[in-house]
Amino acid sequence: MKALFYDGEPKLLPDYPSPKPLLGEALIRLSLAGICNTDLEIAKGYMGFQGVLGHEFVGIVEAAEEEGWLGKRVVGEINCYCGECPLCRRGLFTHCPERTTLGIWGRDGAFAEYLTLPLANLHLVPEEIPDEDAVFVEPLAAALEILEQIEVKPKDKVLVLGDGKLGLLVAQVLALQGCDLLAVGRHAHKLEILKRLGIATHIGEGSWERSFDIVVDCTGTPEGFVQALDLLCPRGTLVLKSTYHGEAEVDLSRLVVDQVTLVGSRCGPFIPALELLRKGQVDVASLISATLSLDEGVRAFQLARKRETLKVLLRP
Amino acid sequence: MKALFYDGEPKLLPDYPSPKPLLGEALIRLSLAGICNTDLEIAKGYMGFQGVLGHEFVGIVEAAEEEGWLGKRVVGEINCYCGECPLCRRGLFTHCPERTTLGIWGRDGAFAEYLTLPLANLHLVPEEIPDEDAVFVEPLAAALEILEQIEVKPKDKVLVLGDGKLGLLVAQVLALQGCDLLAVGRHAHKLEILKRLGIATHIGEGSWERSFDIVVDCTGTPEGFVQALDLLCPRGTLVLKSTYHGEAEVDLSRLVVDQVTLVGSRCGPFIPALELLRKGQVDVASLISATLSLDEGVRAFQLARKRETLKVLLRP
Repeated sequence: MKALFYDGEPKLLPDYPSPKPLLGEALIRLSLAGICNTDLEIAKGYMGFQGVLGHEFVGIVEAAEEEGWLGKRVVGEINCYCGECPLCRRGLFTHCPERTTLGIWGRDGAFAEYLTLPLANLHLVPEEIPDEDAVFVEPLAAALEILEQIEVKPKDKVLVLGDGKLGLLVAQVLALQGCDLLAVGRHAHKLEILKRLGIATHIGEGSWERSFDIVVDCTGTPEGFVQALDLLCPRGTLVLKSTYHGEAEVDLSRLVVDQVTLVGSRCGPFIPALELLRKGQVDVASLISATLSLDEGVRAFQLARKRETLKVLLRP
Repeated sequence: MKALFYDGEPKLLPDYPSPKPLLGEALIRLSLAGICNTDLEIAKGYMGFQGVLGHEFVGIVEAAEEEGWLGKRVVGEINCYCGECPLCRRGLFTHCPERTTLGIWGRDGAFAEYLTLPLANLHLVPEEIPDEDAVFVEPLAAALEILEQIEVKPKDKVLVLGDGKLGLLVAQVLALQGCDLLAVGRHAHKLEILKRLGIATHIGEGSWERSFDIVVDCTGTPEGFVQALDLLCPRGTLVLKSTYHGEAEVDLSRLVVDQVTLVGSRCGPFIPALELLRKGQVDVASLISATLSLDEGVRAFQLARKRETLKVLLRP
């Protein structure tokens, strides 16, 4: 099968072996996949991953022990866990130390004609949701994870920093909470998507001082983290949504003096994400910059790296 | 008056001018003061402070507009705020951007025969509490601040890292919550204080893996922070209690992947601290390593810097 493979640089392999589903797993034929910033970071060396890239997808179940799944359109949670370790027994499946993660850690990903995942990871996609929306379930779930971790109250002043793909989803999810929200980025055409939804936006630097109760850093850069800290009110909460290759210099004493709370936030709940898409409560279609064929996968990565690009989708 | 002054190194000034209380302030005659690690960090350049050192004290009100305060034995909260800025109006007095902080920022401290503080900062010391206990109210309040910020449940596995003065107070406060507590340090004679109170302790390295729901870093070093992170369970909470001079390298992606929460924690509530001391629910007397006269202030700092020393008190 065709697969977009990484072992130092992304490359298209025309005859990569099709995956064989293990007991309890499904074989899924790809319908559509999305390139995430994490994929771009992995292609810079983050996680030391080698294999088929990609973790955002929608596809059709082609093989599974349970016949009810056959032919069904699905999205899938990306962490595959042992189910037996102390963390799994506490329900912290996404933190299982034995886990593999689709296209990120120890498991071939979704940028290929076929992929496999445990049936326990799959969710049926309701008919009302087209593939072009369903492919956003994974990052939308990641945006929703913030609400699983912290309370966002209507009176909270909330800042979303970064107008990339994840930032635009995070801003839309937070806007639904009725909080006093501002989204700050560097690209008029990206912030325009939020503006159309009635969300307050700002381009470039501002003069807000340290007034935000909650800042969500979706910039994907160490500089963004420092800026986020500069805008956070004392006793405020800074949510970190970005993973990237490398370390940052942090003034820990400042966290203590300002009694700041930092919250690292990653994968989130799929079912509420599917519900938001089914009800049309978030606009993901506007985030699609281009849809390319897997054959053009290398070019798709080049395109996805450009600052002006939002989501690049891959079809098989 | 005698004062222990810092302007690059701590020095005893025999004829430093006595402070003049402003409107709403009290003139306080020192009874007893304590040297905190923050004082040692300030004497290394932290905060860029210049003036009389010291912020832990108990003393007698010698002058105040409100006569009811005269002759009263008091302890005092160390942050002096404007009361009018947006943060003060929200009750975040200890984060007032215009604040001065006793012996730390813009205000002469307590290592002198006299000091001044606003009456609003003072708390009467109940008769049952001797000076030797009352001088611990400020750091004990800082330990209690953890409980103002996070929930500590009986089933939580909690680790206190660091057996310095603050670590021993934090461990005692957390032990009262009935959680599954372990205190880890490097000094048998310090951990012995906790052992006598029935608290589980461990000296040196251990093999606990990443199993703690809550880790409180009281080590005062960037290395301690890294160790704390290594022992924290995914989705756990790391409380930072230490301020020190300089920055630390932090792998922010790890905070995201493990969905860790970092909580910076500083000054805390005096009234519950006084209550714990009045009821004898914490042992602070065992933390006193030495009591020296202000005249020996420079030597007291040298003594306080030694690893084996716990609290050094100063009497006028």
